Parts: sequence; C-alpha cells; structure tokens
Amino acid sequence: MTSRISRVEVTPVAFADPPLLNVVGVHQPYALRAVVEVHTDAGSLGLGETYAGELHLERLRAVGDALGGHDPYDLHGLRRVVVETLGRETGGGSDSVGGMLAIDSAVDQVFSPFEVACLDLQGRETGRPVADLLGGAVRDRVPFSGYLFYKWAAHPGQDADEWGEALTPEQVVAQARRMVEGWGFGSLKLKGGVLPPEQECEAVEALAEAFPGVPLRLDPNCGWTVETSLRVAERLGGVLEYLEDPTLGIEGMARVRAGTGLPLATNMCVIAFEHVPPAVREGAVDVILSDHHLWGGLRRSTLLAGICDTFGMGLSMHSNSHLGVSLAAMTHLAAATPNLTYACDTHYPWKTEDVVVPGVLEFVDGAVPVPTGAGLGVELDRDALGRLHEQYLSCGIRGRADTAYMQSIQPDFTPNTLRW
Amino acid sequence: MTSRISRVEVTPVAFADPPLLNVVGVHQPYALRAVVEVHTDAGSLGLGETYAGELHLERLRAVGDALGGHDPYDLHGLRRVVVETLGRETGGGSDSVGGMLAIDSAVDQVFSPFEVACLDLQGRETGRPVADLLGGAVRDRVPFSGYLFYKWAAHPGQDADEWGEALTPEQVVAQARRMVEGWGFGSLKLKGGVLPPEQECEAVEALAEAFPGVPLRLDPNCGWTVETSLRVAERLGGVLEYLEDPTLGIEGMARVRAGTGLPLATNMCVIAFEHVPPAVREGAVDVILSDHHLWGGLRRSTLLAGICDTFGMGLSMHSNSHLGVSLAAMTHLAAATPNLTYACDTHYPWKTEDVVVPGVLEFVDGAVPVPTGAGLGVELDRDALGRLHEQYLSCGIRGRADTAYMQSIQPDFTPNTLRW
Repeated sequence: MTSRISRVEVTPVAFADPPLLNVVGVHQPYALRAVVEVHTDAGSLGLGETYAGELHLERLRAVGDALGGHDPYDLHGLRRVVVETLGRETGGGSDSVGGMLAIDSAVDQVFSPFEVACLDLQGRETGRPVADLLGGAVRDRVPFSGYLFYKWAAHPGQDADEWGEALTPEQVVAQARRMVEGWGFGSLKLKGGVLPPEQECEAVEALAEAFPGVPLRLDPNCGWTVETSLRVAERLGGVLEYLEDPTLGIEGMARVRAGTGLPLATNMCVIAFEHVPPAVREGAVDVILSDHHLWGGLRRSTLLAGICDTFGMGLSMHSNSHLGVSLAAMTHLAAATPNLTYACDTHYPWKTEDVVVPGVLEFVDGAVPVPTGAGLGVELDRDALGRLHEQYLSCGIRGRADTAYMQSIQPDFTPNTLRW
Repeated sequence: MTSRISRVEVTPVAFADPPLLNVVGVHQPYALRAVVEVHTDAGSLGLGETYAGELHLERLRAVGDALGGHDPYDLHGLRRVVVETLGRETGGGSDSVGGMLAIDSAVDQVFSPFEVACLDLQGRETGRPVADLLGGAVRDRVPFSGYLFYKWAAHPGQDADEWGEALTPEQVVAQARRMVEGWGFGSLKLKGGVLPPEQECEAVEALAEAFPGVPLRLDPNCGWTVETSLRVAERLGGVLEYLEDPTLGIEGMARVRAGTGLPLATNMCVIAFEHVPPAVREGAVDVILSDHHLWGGLRRSTLLAGICDTFGMGLSMHSNSHLGVSLAAMTHLAAATPNLTYACDTHYPWKTEDVVVPGVLEFVDGAVPVPTGAGLGVELDRDALGRLHEQYLSCGIRGRADTAYMQSIQPDFTPNTLRW
C-alpha cells in the first residue's frame, strides 16, 4: 500500500447540549467539535474528531494543508509536521478544553485527530479494525460508566429537556435510573463541584442506597480544599471506587492521598506526559484518566497505559462532550488496552445528534461492542455533518465558555475551584 | 486479511564466535541462537530470533505448539498464550542470557521472537516495512557503535582468528582501526571488566588519542566497586560519552551517579519494566540500553522508549551475539524510535556466518540502511539455516556458559564482578 494523503477537511460542528453544571459554570446550548477527514489518493477516507475552539481549528487547518503527499503510516513524520506547523508558538493548549486545564503545548491535541484518522486509514486499507493495529482487542465490549450531572431543567428561554432538573439527591437518583434503564450502565459517576460538598455526599449516598453494589465515582473538579477532600474521603470511603480530582494540583492531591486510603483519580493534575514524573515522585494519584484527544492520539494513549502499568497506577478514561467518531476511537483504544480496568466515562447519552451513520455504536448492558469493521468502523453521515455544520455557523458559539455562559445568567457567579 | 498461524518452527543454530573476554569469562567457540518461523495458512512466513538455552527452547516450542489458529495481529492474545503456557513457572528468565542478569519472569523473553515474527507477517501481508508498523522510520540509516573486546588470538587448540589478540592498549587500538576501516563505525565501545581498571582506562585513553572526536564508551559489566567507579569516572570524564554499568545494582549505580557528572548507562540494573520505578526513584541511571529480546519485542521496546522520554532518560540499544533476523529487527526498531539518539551496540562484525540471505543488511559508514522490503525485509537462507543447525547438533554446546568455559582453561578463574 503506497497511498498518500491527498486532501484534509476540517469541519466544525455544533450539537445541542443540555445545561449540565460543573465547577466552572454550565454547558452552553451547543457543544462544538471538529470532524477531521483525511482523504488519500487511493480514494480512502480516515476520520478523526477533536475540539473546535477557533485557535484549535486554525491549527488543524494549517496542519491539514501541510499534509499533502504524506504517508498515513508515517506517524512520527506527522508529529514533525504538527510541531513545525505550530512553530515555536505551541502554547495555549488549554484554548479548547474549557478553561479548566493548563497544558504547555498544543502539539498532542493537534496531532491526535490526524493520528486517529491515519490509523483509521491503515485499518481500512488492510481490512483491520483499529484495535488490531493497537495489538488486538482484549475485550469485545467496552464498559462505560453512566455520567450523572447536576443540571437545570432547561437552558434559559427553552423548554425543559427530556432529562429535567437534577439538583437534589432524589433527582440525581432519578437521572441515574434513567441512565441505567436506558443504557444498562453498571457503574455511575457524578460530576460534582457544583453544590456544597455535604449535598454532593448526600447524592452519592442516595445513589449507593438506590444502586447497591454499583461502583460509584465523584468528580468535583478541584472544587475542594485539602481538608474538605479528606473529610469527604472519610465520609464516602466505603462507597466510592475512586474520588476524582477533589483538589487542585499535584501537591494538593498528594496531601489528600497521604491522608486517605480511598483511591484518587485525575484528569486534571496529570493531563500530559510532563506531569507524570512529578505525580509519580509526589505520589499524587492512584488512577490516571486517559483521553486520546489530550494525550496525542491512540498510540500515545497506549504509552500512557504502559506507564501506568509500569508504575503501578490504575487507568481509566476521561470523556467530554463528543460525537461518534470519538466514541469509536475510544472504544477501539479501550478494547486494546489490557490494563484499562475501569469502565470509561462517556457523555454520549447526553447528546441527541451525531455525525456518524447510526447502527454501529450501541450501548448494550452499559458497554459498547467493539466495531468489527475495518478502521474505526464508523461512516460519516454527510447530511448530518452538513446539518451540524450549519448549526455551528448559525449558533454563534465559537469556543467553550462555561463560565461566561453561567455569568450571562447569574452575573455574580465565579468558578467553584477550591471554594469549599 | 484474515490469515491465521498454521505452524511454528523453532530451530536452534550455532555459529562460530571468537574468544571474546568479559567479566564472567570468555565466549565459547560457538554462540547459540534460536530462529523462530511463524507460518500462516495464507502461506506467509514471519521470522523471529532469540536466545537458545535449553529451557528457553522448551518454552518457545511449547508456545509455538499453542499458536495454531492464532491471528498474527492479536499481540495481546499472544502474550496471554505465553503467560498461560509458562503457567506459574515463569521464573528463570536469566537462563538464556549468560548468567549476568537476574530477571523474575521469562514472559517478555519468550514473547519477543513471536511478536517480532507477527510484526514481520503484518508487514509482509500489507507490503510495509516493520518500521512503518511502529509509527514510521525517523531515519533511513541506523548508526551502530563498533564493539571492541579484549580477546585471545584463538580458542585453545584452534588457529588464531583474523582479529588476533587484543590485551594491550595498542592491540585494542588496532582492533578499533580494523572495525572503523571495515565497517565505518563513528563511535566505539570497549567491553571492560576484564583487566584491572587502570589498564582499561589506558586502553580508552589510547582510543581517544587514536580516534579524536569519536564518541567512546566503556562497559565493565559491574566489575568495579563504587569507589573504583568514581575514580574511573573522574579519570575518563572528558573522554567517554557514557560509562556503562560500572558497578552492581540500582543502589550502587545511584551512589556512583551522585558523585559524577559523567552519564551512566545500564543494561544490567534495569533490564525489565519492574526495574524502572526503583531506578527512577533512586536516580540510578542517565541512559537505558534497550534490547527487544529482553524487553518483550518491538512494541514493548517503544514503550520503554516512551518511558525514557517521559522521565528524561536517554536511550541506547544493547546487543549480544546475534544473527541477521535480530539485526533487521533492531534496525527497524531503532529507525522508528525518535529518541534513540545514541548509536546502537552490535556484535555483528564478530560473526562469520548467518541464516539470512546476504545483501540486505550492510554497514555503510557505520550505519545499517533500514531494509525497505515488506516486514523485516530479510529472507531465510535455508541452506545456511540447515548448516548452522547441524553445527548446533554437533558442537555439544547447549547453553551459554562463559564462566565454565573459562574455568575449563583457567581453573582458578572466578567472575570479576565487583573485583576491583
């Protein structure tokens, strides 16, 4: 196979997103994603999906323009193209990920959708699922965790969505019941950092009572001090499988970890390879949540997995609002990662629109069967892509801004980071 | 591609080896290797090469027998087969590597040749060089280092070999000149641990004088105490690019490293993933020498490379006596490892026989051009394979035993480990 990349298209799309609350504010009415199409001179098409902030889109397009004639197997060369295209201006990596994360370099984020698309191409041209290109699937279905959110019933000025309000323990349990009944999830995660910790503990305890034996997680996105984190860890020690990012930074997490036996997970203080050595040195975390969009694609995510295995850390998988190309990539990666022993996060049930042809990605008993087709195994639905691109053009949103959107509704809002 | 493994053959071979001296004794008249052939029902053949100690051969054959019907892309499944075949009895990993190394588990060593053969198969069936399956070659030629040895002129009872004796600085320089003139090496490594450290320092200084500007390495295989190591490091600080395994163990290496600015390399105290965390914690080494035979194949070696990159350690590549299948695998791996920034070790010039068809693997200016054919790019020479197998059967050697062979010649010999 000697096909070469002939053309790259980067299409920003917007899809409706419910008013999900978090530590920095509330999800806007539309979430943005960029769909990356990598075409070859042999007529093949590889797909990637990533963030769609304006600076990120600009970078994606610049890289896409530089890839004409590139060999889809040359992933190291692809990385060089990304580095060279971004030039010395590699900063601002947190541009597209909601203002919660600080990353020095955008290289891994920009590289990721192209890498995924190249693996999709390799799979399509060899008739192999992407999982096979990562060493083979060790599981034929990937379990996901039901992702619960505090939320309003509706965005201001809109009718209530089908999920309704969730601000009390009872409402959170009702949301969980809908998740479990509709998708079959066997574990549950609550996004916290929204209400005072006591109320979030009550919600978790209500979940534990309503779903006995179901593994639970709580993720306040660094909403708490070290002292509060320890207090919550003690209260929920027998209930949670892990506590995610209770407090800010590697040093803070290490202080919490030194005071509790409850496993601590992160996708905030360790989100790039440069964070791993200090986290190991300080003993900051038990579990890292990988995310191929952040960590530079699927092969780099298997590197992270190998590092976790080598250093005795657990591995789980982060998700933020995404569409089917990303879900397919996450599923192949998770299937081919032996030590990914926790159910993965997913925002998937929260969305009502997609860009892939339906039918391949389904939740069965809380798990997604690994697509068996060549490559990622999913196809673009061109009509849907066009529709969601039109929605991007018309919705006026050009970047994720949970805090600004919240402040447009509650002018005195400030992020809850370390608030309690 | 849906081809499956139909048959595995494991062929032990013996090839003539000069009387090269090291810390534990002297190379026997023949070095042993096992050639692993993995055949598929589509008529493809993938190649691997590994150690050939008797226990190792037994394990290779047991795994080979269990692989019928296995998918060559299912590397995780291959690993499971190895683990299950070895059962709980996974110890004795050092059986085949000359008695210098202590490894808890043989899984990575047994897995390695099969993984290489499966990647060879994947490459052959997709028309891609193995380097492409590892992310693509970042260099089209892989530099190797000329590997100098103290040696006798001949094995007892034999005529002098073409290299002659090397026991003095002048003889070492003459050997180096032959290496440089014949193969074009641009860097040189001296295997030490044979003579008192002062004499080995003199040899290195003679090399520095004879080859100004050529990077030099010295590897006494833990022949020295911490104090001696520090003394040598001070004396050769301006001459060596790194000092390899001056003393024994992670703790000893850390003590040396704390007292010198000369980079320390190892392929003795960090030879498996379980050694990496303590080495990082203690700050024991600057450079790890990878070896895909020890570390579980090519993909696992790229994991090691990623760990070195993440933790700020350098990466070089170890070699022991091997044939062309291994050289091809090493070359593809090195080509596809961006942070392998040191010239690789190689014993290749010391051998006069091989099992691969000549012409693909050549040293040009001290480097091996990366084979461009599908898979590893080398083919078995069936006549040569048969001849070297006959040699295995007739030579009487069934495992590497440098110390016992030395003691058969010098009965009072004991290994020089920590001698000086």
